[in-house]
Amino acid sequence: VAPGSLLALDLGGTQVRAAAVSPEGVVTGVRRAQTPVADGPRAIEAACVRLLRGVASEVPVVAAVGISSAGPVDPWRGVVTDPPNLGPVFRDVPLASVVEEALGVPTFLDRDTQLAAVGEGTLGAARGSRDFIYVTISTGLGGAVVSGGRLLRGPDGTAGELGHLTVDLDGPACGCGARGHLEAIASGRAIASAGEAAARSGASPLLAARLEATGTAGSLSARDVAEASDAGDAAAGAILERAFEAFAAAAVSLVDVFNPERIVVGGSLAEAMPERFFEPARAAIAAHAFRDPGRRVRIVRAALGPDVSLVGAAVAAAVRAGIAREIGLAPDFEGADLDPGGA
Amino acid sequence: VAPGSLLALDLGGTQVRAAAVSPEGVVTGVRRAQTPVADGPRAIEAACVRLLRGVASEVPVVAAVGISSAGPVDPWRGVVTDPPNLGPVFRDVPLASVVEEALGVPTFLDRDTQLAAVGEGTLGAARGSRDFIYVTISTGLGGAVVSGGRLLRGPDGTAGELGHLTVDLDGPACGCGARGHLEAIASGRAIASAGEAAARSGASPLLAARLEATGTAGSLSARDVAEASDAGDAAAGAILERAFEAFAAAAVSLVDVFNPERIVVGGSLAEAMPERFFEPARAAIAAHAFRDPGRRVRIVRAALGPDVSLVGAAVAAAVRAGIAREIGLAPDFEGADLDPGGA
Repeated sequence: VAPGSLLALDLGGTQVRAAAVSPEGVVTGVRRAQTPVADGPRAIEAACVRLLRGVASEVPVVAAVGISSAGPVDPWRGVVTDPPNLGPVFRDVPLASVVEEALGVPTFLDRDTQLAAVGEGTLGAARGSRDFIYVTISTGLGGAVVSGGRLLRGPDGTAGELGHLTVDLDGPACGCGARGHLEAIASGRAIASAGEAAARSGASPLLAARLEATGTAGSLSARDVAEASDAGDAAAGAILERAFEAFAAAAVSLVDVFNPERIVVGGSLAEAMPERFFEPARAAIAAHAFRDPGRRVRIVRAALGPDVSLVGAAVAAAVRAGIAREIGLAPDFEGADLDPGGA
Repeated sequence: VAPGSLLALDLGGTQVRAAAVSPEGVVTGVRRAQTPVADGPRAIEAACVRLLRGVASEVPVVAAVGISSAGPVDPWRGVVTDPPNLGPVFRDVPLASVVEEALGVPTFLDRDTQLAAVGEGTLGAARGSRDFIYVTISTGLGGAVVSGGRLLRGPDGTAGELGHLTVDLDGPACGCGARGHLEAIASGRAIASAGEAAARSGASPLLAARLEATGTAGSLSARDVAEASDAGDAAAGAILERAFEAFAAAAVSLVDVFNPERIVVGGSLAEAMPERFFEPARAAIAAHAFRDPGRRVRIVRAALGPDVSLVGAAVAAAVRAGIAREIGLAPDFEGADLDPGGA
């Protein structure tokens, strides 16, 4: 008899989602709400609790709750520490404790990308691998690293922020203030922002027309840039080529620095990209990475789609609550590898 | 009664050194020879064995031998796989087996920078830390990463090659063929090479005069560039500033990606650098790294000097041979963390 259901919550800058997750990774009963960023931390906490209570009301017993949050977080204390996208006063919020008290169920919290790596490593594209990298490319660009079967954490739990690899010293400013980070060139936000600049400078006639049609600053998307490129717009094409080039250069660095078996690429922008997005990276690795790691590594698409952090949060919660085996979940990471208390 | 002495060998592209190392990290009886690169792998093997036999003849009993080699290496099989600086036919050489058979003593081999990290982590500037990065800046630029008390290895044992972090997509070519790797901007070779280009283009009158005085291509050194900068040569100053800037950008990335407590910087070029070399990196971390890891990390100088890899090789050999405790060496890494068989 299963001891109960696993619930998962995914807290992002625009949306909160809660759901039940089966030991096979099937997500059901999804409830969602806009993240009430403007209303402050208490409103965000209340939205999380409300959604989870809704999901809990539809399952017999809840065994554990896993929370995936935008980073940075402290996974040991279950605290969302210093997130850039949850409003200026959302700082050092002990969300795991808040949920645990409200629902009366063991609750564990970790960064969304760390949990996505847990999901892909146990039930997705990196299943069975003890050395892989997860990269997510959507509005932002983030990641996580599993080396020797362990999630890299560091003493603050913030390790794995691959969006902040510098790839272009003189490049565009990143959200963190540094120049030329991977996120500042190859993320959806970066591509859209470069597209808007090309529209305003007149370099891209197609994007200028698109911008004029909407009339709103910030209205262009990475998809607009991709469509303009497909329609033959040279400036839009150059923006995408630069993003591909930055990703390829970072991929070589990742191979030389981490020696991974796989680089798993997920996120909405990566999912929308054609296979040729990956070709410059594969070619650069073949040409420039160290011989043996370059031959070994495979760049593959993520398998779990937009629910990846929910699945990973449920898996991690089961492992950290000590019930993974009991409920028939056999993660390829050992318990100690997920439990930050074991680090 | 101690069960015997620890011997260490350091195989580099220009020189081979062998010595005895005490459990306190004191290096004695050093013997050295030019690396006979032109004479091929067998001659290099013979030089290694000869030097070690010489050191062994002066100690009572040898308990274990640790070999530090230029990378990449396979630390499990004790094989130097694909080194760029040991000649074109030195490939996949099982040096640990060769030495073990010749001396009849358990012998272990690892990459020089991995062993330097072991040395600094057990007896040097990172003593007691479970999360630190070692960077060596001399002719080349290399590194190693310890995360959660474990040396990052990867399935081929090549992880930690921090010289191949891309920092400038459009930058100068690296030895590996990629553009703008950290090693291609901030290593001694890179600084000297940029100095020579500035001399030839006329941008640097002082370096042009220096080059003319020697008359030999490749004769300028990073030290020449530093001296020209100190003497007011603007082009030489710009080359150094660029190296500082590249190191600073990489340091921010290292903090965000690894969340280390310390970044230990060693190598002959770093040792010769004034403290201001580190200031741009500290300032960049304070300005741009994630809050908590940025506050935590310290950039410190390596403590063990040019013998660091010999010390690390001896420590690793003692741990891997299972005699570390017996001989009074209490490494802060556990045995499993050094033994690649445990990964």
